[in-house]
Amino acid sequence: MTETLHRLAIGIEYDGSGFRGWQTQKEARTLQAQVEKALSRVADEPIGVTCAGRTDAGVHATGQIIHFDTRAVRDPRAWLLGGNSHLSPELSFQWVRPMPDDFHARFSARWRRYRYIFLNRLTRPAILRRRVTWIHRPLDAALMAKAVPHLLGEHDFSSFRAKGCQARTPIRTVQEVSVHRRGDFIHLDIRANAFLHHMVRNIAGVLMAIGRGEYPPEWIAEVLTARDRSQAGITAPPDGLYLVQVGYEDRFDLNPPAVVPEYA
Amino acid sequence: MTETLHRLAIGIEYDGSGFRGWQTQKEARTLQAQVEKALSRVADEPIGVTCAGRTDAGVHATGQIIHFDTRAVRDPRAWLLGGNSHLSPELSFQWVRPMPDDFHARFSARWRRYRYIFLNRLTRPAILRRRVTWIHRPLDAALMAKAVPHLLGEHDFSSFRAKGCQARTPIRTVQEVSVHRRGDFIHLDIRANAFLHHMVRNIAGVLMAIGRGEYPPEWIAEVLTARDRSQAGITAPPDGLYLVQVGYEDRFDLNPPAVVPEYA
Repeated sequence: MTETLHRLAIGIEYDGSGFRGWQTQKEARTLQAQVEKALSRVADEPIGVTCAGRTDAGVHATGQIIHFDTRAVRDPRAWLLGGNSHLSPELSFQWVRPMPDDFHARFSARWRRYRYIFLNRLTRPAILRRRVTWIHRPLDAALMAKAVPHLLGEHDFSSFRAKGCQARTPIRTVQEVSVHRRGDFIHLDIRANAFLHHMVRNIAGVLMAIGRGEYPPEWIAEVLTARDRSQAGITAPPDGLYLVQVGYEDRFDLNPPAVVPEYA
Repeated sequence: MTETLHRLAIGIEYDGSGFRGWQTQKEARTLQAQVEKALSRVADEPIGVTCAGRTDAGVHATGQIIHFDTRAVRDPRAWLLGGNSHLSPELSFQWVRPMPDDFHARFSARWRRYRYIFLNRLTRPAILRRRVTWIHRPLDAALMAKAVPHLLGEHDFSSFRAKGCQARTPIRTVQEVSVHRRGDFIHLDIRANAFLHHMVRNIAGVLMAIGRGEYPPEWIAEVLTARDRSQAGITAPPDGLYLVQVGYEDRFDLNPPAVVPEYA
């Protein structure tokens, strides 16, 4: 122990299927509570953490990032391996790095990247259950791919925003977005400066309707322009959603790898 | 119902991590019991099934094959979807086909193909826990790849045979075998006419020692020649093992696809 608080960042992978989301809630099993408990045991003092993206119940991450402050002095490997030994098997720390005091896992982030994975076949997945979103009716990935470029750039994403979303503004900038089929799997990859609550799942819901041929690809532009949640489709399930990468201001020189889950 | 028994074959995918293996045992949760219970409900009569490869506790399958006889008349889609609706989420029927009475899931099989997946990185897997075998010390896949050709052909595999193995003879023919690294994953792919109890896991155990540099690639030939289980290494865990394909006599025209799991 020293008297000096110092800041650390950690990259985390987790299977969110058994949790009520990231954020600590009374009497609910959350990822944040697991992480804080494990780090507090390594630090031998209470630790509170802040994450880059507060994922919903059932959503996964390969590239979640947190920061926390501590007086405990441990080398990064001790935080990593000690932390993992205290975590539930559904979470795993991937790396640990000392950071300057003005680094903030959420506010220093410049963009987030998500992948949404559909499994499109007649029969449900057994091995990948709760890790992909199973759609038994055929989806035309080419139509879905034709739709997504309409989302690029800065827009008011109110149509894709959950009712309870607490963001100050519905304006977000989508920097990259694509849809690719690989065998029975369809991947939606999307990068934006930030995301509204349920934004990726609501986009995935609209793409499902387009993939089934119920609406043309251009419908997504109409939904976007309407700025009205009731114009969009369903909220797609959390099972197929992964937070895969967070990008930070260059000065932090923190370049976490994109760990993009892919199944075949 | 008719009075005529007829035979059906089913392709099954399962996550074996929550089961005491395929074969029915008293007071143990087994895959066979799950499958028989689901089919009996669809058939509305007791169904007993026979599988191509009796996988151990914790071992997975993407291409397990069973056959059974029934008096119940249902179309293949009703068996498939009805069966899946009665199965635990850890199992999923992939296809159903009527077969001639002399087809036998086990005795008509000419070969089996398995994949063993190592995850070779410092930190344990969260999303793929119990679906891969995690090895935190670096493995040299090139050394492992150099070892496996020694297994090709007909040999006495006593060195790779579990103590309790009930096979009549330890002679097996390995038809294809390879090791490939893809990122942090290392795949052992092996096809043989049949396998002894724990044979793939015992081969994987020897390959782990070779990959760590404890023995040269040629050691696997010495182990094989010794025909003595005590000469080989540990039995690798079941987590990374998948039965992926079974090949049958041509006359049955049953060519189940190789559904080879791959993660990235």
